[in-house]
Formats: sequence, C-alpha cells, structure tokens
Amino acid sequence: MVYVTRREKFCSAHRLFREDWSEEKNKEVFGLCSNPKWHGHNYQLFVTVKGKVNQETGFVVNLKDLSRLIRKKIIFKLDHKNINEEVDFLSNKITSTENIVMAIWNELEQEVKLLDADLHCIKLVETENNSVEYYGE
Amino acid sequence: MVYVTRREKFCSAHRLFREDWSEEKNKEVFGLCSNPKWHGHNYQLFVTVKGKVNQETGFVVNLKDLSRLIRKKIIFKLDHKNINEEVDFLSNKITSTENIVMAIWNELEQEVKLLDADLHCIKLVETENNSVEYYGE
Amino acid sequence: MVYVTRREKFCSAHRLFREDWSEEKNKEVFGLCSNPKWHGHNYQLFVTVKGKVNQETGFVVNLKDLSRLIRKKIIFKLDHKNINEEVDFLSNKITSTENIVMAIWNELEQEVKLLDADLHCIKLVETENNSVEYYGE
Amino acid sequence: MVYVTRREKFCSAHRLFREDWSEEKNKEVFGLCSNPKWHGHNYQLFVTVKGKVNQETGFVVNLKDLSRLIRKKIIFKLDHKNINEEVDFLSNKITSTENIVMAIWNELEQEVKLLDADLHCIKLVETENNSVEYYGE
Amino acid sequence: MVYVTRREKFCSAHRLFREDWSEEKNKEVFGLCSNPKWHGHNYQLFVTVKGKVNQETGFVVNLKDLSRLIRKKIIFKLDHKNINEEVDFLSNKITSTENIVMAIWNELEQEVKLLDADLHCIKLVETENNSVEYYGE
Amino acid sequence: MVYVTRREKFCSAHRLFREDWSEEKNKEVFGLCSNPKWHGHNYQLFVTVKGKVNQETGFVVNLKDLSRLIRKKIIFKLDHKNINEEVDFLSNKITSTENIVMAIWNELEQEVKLLDADLHCIKLVETENNSVEYYGE
Repeated sequence: MVYVTRREKFCSAHRLFREDWSEEKNKEVFGLCSNPKWHGHNYQLFVTVKGKVNQETGFVVNLKDLSRLIRKKIIFKLDHKNINEEVDFLSNKITSTENIVMAIWNELEQEVKLLDADLHCIKLVETENNSVEYYGE
Repeated sequence: MVYVTRREKFCSAHRLFREDWSEEKNKEVFGLCSNPKWHGHNYQLFVTVKGKVNQETGFVVNLKDLSRLIRKKIIFKLDHKNINEEVDFLSNKITSTENIVMAIWNELEQEVKLLDADLHCIKLVETENNSVEYYGE
Repeated sequence: MVYVTRREKFCSAHRLFREDWSEEKNKEVFGLCSNPKWHGHNYQLFVTVKGKVNQETGFVVNLKDLSRLIRKKIIFKLDHKNINEEVDFLSNKITSTENIVMAIWNELEQEVKLLDADLHCIKLVETENNSVEYYGE
Repeated sequence: MVYVTRREKFCSAHRLFREDWSEEKNKEVFGLCSNPKWHGHNYQLFVTVKGKVNQETGFVVNLKDLSRLIRKKIIFKLDHKNINEEVDFLSNKITSTENIVMAIWNELEQEVKLLDADLHCIKLVETENNSVEYYGE
Repeated sequence: MVYVTRREKFCSAHRLFREDWSEEKNKEVFGLCSNPKWHGHNYQLFVTVKGKVNQETGFVVNLKDLSRLIRKKIIFKLDHKNINEEVDFLSNKITSTENIVMAIWNELEQEVKLLDADLHCIKLVETENNSVEYYGE
Repeated sequence: MVYVTRREKFCSAHRLFREDWSEEKNKEVFGLCSNPKWHGHNYQLFVTVKGKVNQETGFVVNLKDLSRLIRKKIIFKLDHKNINEEVDFLSNKITSTENIVMAIWNELEQEVKLLDADLHCIKLVETENNSVEYYGE
C-alpha cells in the first residue's frame, strides 16, 4: 500500500456567517471572517490516494489522471469563485475549512475508485498557519 | 546604507473589471479574475526601507515600529476586506497588483520618513507564481 | 472526525548537555549542540486537534481560541527565551526536540479538551531538515 | 513513542518507460516523463523513524547517525546519478516515485534497527505538486 | 515603472562537462555535476519585466500573455528534456545556470517588447541553495 | 555581468542590548530581543557575487569554492555559537541583523576577489518576516 499525494490550488472568495444570526453574533464568533463584503484565500488542496502499485506502470495511479479528476470535479468549480454562492456542492453550508474538506471528500471518493485507488485524505491549507485534514470518518 | 524588509500578510477579496466594459470584454481581458462574485488571495506584502544604521541601536529602523506602521496604515485596511469596495486609498481603481503596490507606496512613503528611513520598495506576492515590485518611480 | 492544525512560532536559545557528563562526552554525543554558550532556532510548532464538526459553526474548534491557548500556555513561555533555564515545564530536562514535544503535549492535552476537542499531534520543526512528532502515546 | 523525521536531498536524472512497449505506448502512459534523453528532479527525501526516547540523551535516535546512514545508503547512490542506470537497488525497475520509496524502505529498514529505532515512513517529494509515502506494508 | 515577475518551472536533465577535457579534468572542475549519465533539477524560472502601468487595464503586461510567451519560447523546449542535447538555443554550450539565464534572456528580450514591456531580469533557481540572475548586460 | 547567489545557514544564539543602558531601557528599545538569557534563530545567509562568465567553465565562480569560502570564513564561526560572545568579527557590536550583514560583507569582500568575482550583496533572513540586505555602501 503506497500513498500518493497531488497538490492543486484555487483562489476564492468566501465569508463565514449564519443568516439566522445578527451581524454582532456573527462577528463575535467568526471575527473578521464574517465580513459581509467577503475576503479570500489562496487555498492549497492536497489529495492523498492509496493503493497497490501496478506492476506494469509502477504507479498507484497515473498522476495525470488524478490531476485531471481533481481539476474537473473541484478546482474548476472553486477557483476564482465565491465559495458561498457559486459552488453547487457547498450550497447552504458554512464555508469553514472543515466543511470544505468534507464536501471535497464526498465529491472525490467514488471517482477515485474509478482510478483503481482509494481516497485516503483531503488536506486543505487555508493560510500558512491554518490547515485541516479529513480521512472520511 | 542598509536595506531592511518586513513581511506582513493580508487575505482579501477582489475582482478585476471595468464598469464601462461589457462582461464579455471584461472576461476577454481579465479572464477568471473578472468573476462578478469576486475571488481572493493570501497576499504577502514585503516593505523594504533603507537608511543608515543608527550607531546607538544597530538598527536602520526598529522593526516593531515598522511593523506597527504597516499594520496600521495598510494591513488593517486590507485584511479580510473587499479591496474593490472597502479600501479608501484604492477607491475607483482597478485592483491589479500593479495599482495596489503603487497605492501602498503612496500611503507609506511619508510615514517611513518619520522613522528616519526611506521607503525603497513595495513588493506584493499575489500567488506563488505572480508578484509585483514598485520603487517609487 | 476532522483534524485541524494551527502553526505558531518561537525563537529560542538552548543547548543539549548533561551536567553529569564531561565536556568531551557532551561534545561526542551532542556535537555542536552542546556549545556551552548556547545556540538557537526558529522553531515552528504545529498543534493538531481532532473532533466532530459543530453543526452551528462549521468548526471543530474556533482557531482564535486554539491560537490563544497555544500562545498563552506555550509560546509566551518559550519565545525569546532560553529553553534550558527559563521554561517551567522543561526544567531539569534535556531540551531535545523529542522532550520538548512531549512536554508541550502535557501542557496542552487537558486544555484542548476544554475547547471540546482532543489533542492529536504535537509537531515541532527545528530546522528545515529536522522535525519531531508526538501523538501522546 | 516519538516520531523523528530527517530530510535529505538528491538531484537525479531518470525516465519512465518500459522496454517492452513502443515509444508511442510509453508516451501515451508516461507522457513527457518517458523522454528517451531523460529529465530530472530535485528530490526531497523525508525519513521518519519511531521509538522510545532514550532517557540519557533525550533522543529517539541521534540525528547525526540517522543522517549519516541515509547519506551512505541512499543519497550517495542517488545524488547526481541516473536513477534508471546507476542505482543498484533500483536496477530493472520502473523508476516511479512509488517504486523508489519502496526500494528505499528496503535499504533502510534493517539499518534503522541498528540505531535502536524502527523505520516508520519514507516520503519522497518529486515536485511541489507530487509526493509519495510508504509505511512498509 | 513597475516590475512584474512570473514564475514558471521545468524539470530537466543536464551535465556540466567539456568534450575537450578528460573525464578527470571534468570531475575536478565540475565535480558530481559532470556525471556522464546525467543528473537533473526542478528549475524555477522567474522572469521580471518592467514598464508603465496601462491606465485602461491596470497592468504592465497581462500575465496570461507573459506566461504563454514564457511557456511557448522556454518551458516547452526545456521541460522534461535533456538541456545539453535537446534545446536548440543552448546547443554547444556548457549548461551552467549562468549560460542558461543568458540564453533565456536572448530568447525573450525582443518577444517581451511585443507585449509593450521591457525584460528586466531572468532569475533561475537550480536548488534551494543556488540561483543566478541576469539583467542583460 | 551575471549574479550568482549561494545560500548557507547557521543556528545561533544572541541578544540585543547595550551594557550602558538599564535593563528597562534595553527592554523598551529591544523588547523581547533583549532577554538576558538569550534567544536564537535559524539564520539564512544569501551571498551574491557578480562577474563575467568564464568562457571555459560557464561559471562566474565555482559554487564549490564560494560555498567553501562562506563556510570557512562565516558559517564555521557563527553556526551553533553565541553571536554576542563567540564571534571575533562581531565583538563589541550590537548583534542586530544590520550589523551582522555589514560585518559579513567586510569578512568576504576581499576573499571573493580571489575567486575572480566581486561581492554584490549580503542578505540575511532572520525570520520569515524579517530580513536585511547590504550592498557595500
């Protein structure tokens, strides 16, 4: 069992807030991240898959295929977008890094199986100080 | 003459567009960066000042003072904000990295003199692939 | 279960040595790190906590709270200090990276529970070539 | 149980190809990586070992010893070499990152035991976007 | 006058040697870099152009155009190639980092003018410890 | 004229203070950096030399020679040392980053000429936020 990680990037706007909370409550809990006019990040997404090494190719998965999959299913939808308002698989969710990694896991889990590998980890680096990982359970 | 550089960071939303252009024209010139619902970046700002070394302190400038100045005049206004709509010194400007560095230069040039140093360079790193520098002329 | 990591930094002096060893023995085992007049590092501390995502906030833990905790209990005591002589929770210990991560774990384990999460990993990066991780067992 | 990681680097040439495949088939599967005249990388190797902390030294393993071991057994053989043609422990293998990490594991597993620790993970970073990890099973 | 920098990357094989020198002389001068079976690097290329900011776009140069130019004229020819044997603009040259930056300058200088900007600097980072810059004179 | 940069590293202890100032005055000006029991950093030193490219070798300077020079004259004296008390060329100086770069310049300027190149810049990175450059005048 070998673990292969591909990094892809997206630059997006978002904000953390609840419509059912007052602006004061939003500011108290979410701080600057609740700014009504948005802010944004250069997100780094690390997708780790695991599997046996194919004896013919030496690959767990062809990174060209893995990269194409991540770009088609995730980056295309998130890059240079507003995460709160323009991403189908995150509609009606608080766009915390935690919720984003779980949603990305759900988008990719079955697709990775089609590449004969298993999704192992979704890691999302929001800033050089903050990151989140999800292993599917 | 010694050059001292301080890095500060801000996470902001923005978009590149001209109101007097159609959405098609904006997309043709600015590409994904013209997305009407914004996108964003983790900007890294490098402020370089130059001056003689004070014999008493060994400093060109006390970095505590330089950091405080940058945070008060620039970071406080840009961090977790919408650069197009919420930053006084960038109102009515296209928020290209080029325009941002020139505007930051104008905000800091005189203030740095009060620290007995001269502003030398404003460098802004928008992504790991793109950056811009301005030397005041 | 989602894993959230916060990075904090501290710049400290230390040395590796045993008082009950000769200077020669110290130098043989600890090399340059035993220099009697100290040396130092820019340490990077990565604290990973795990927990369920709070449905109301989208957070495992509010990173403002986690950062404040780490700074109060750890960074405040280590940053710009002599690790051998000024840190209560490391007194009488060899200040190896291994011993530091275990001591930091002990300082944070119960405190993280008060944030409704569990401490998962303490990672300490001493140089770009050397790092250590501890998972509490 | 504490985990200690040492990074070492090597700069090597390689190509991905199978002699029993046509150049077209090689190009289809391996893309640019099959270029007959080679290409190369700055590889970063992260070797993680685990073990109990020695009470006398505060170390799981003396990093001088671990570094010397990795350089003698691995870096000396790979650095500034052609991985396909000059590395005994990779002869007749496709030099995919997956195969390299498994081969490095086999070279180091018993040697690390002589340092009173256990090999935990071989991680190889080929580019800033691609990396592979192996845990021995 | 604003300076805009674009980073592009290429992974290539090369060696340093002179055919008119013995293998011993090559090894004495070029060390491991003279290995007859090649080695390689992840090169990072930073192209800096300078110019006035276009008032209509806020750009010195559209980074999409600059990136396309660099990829077409440089990256396409160097990436996943053997620099000594497969790059037209470096044939019969010692493939030192110095010679590569001067050759890249010559390839790009006139092309950048077509984008209404001036080439300012070619910087090439060969490893995290070694880099070279050329300003055209 | 081509510019070649070599990075070397050193891990040292130091403090900023004046003996002729009270501890309060030292703390007011130098802050945490005045801690009497020292603190420390992983310093990154970037030495840039300039010169013509030797047609025989393709080099401005052989990086093996430049690295050996920097290590012999600078790194050997600073690494794992106390900069205030153990470095001959910094005795009786405030160990600010500014003073360190100027002192390193003086140590290397003539030595670089022996390699048929000219010293261009000494850059010292103290933390990821703070750095200083000196060009000899």
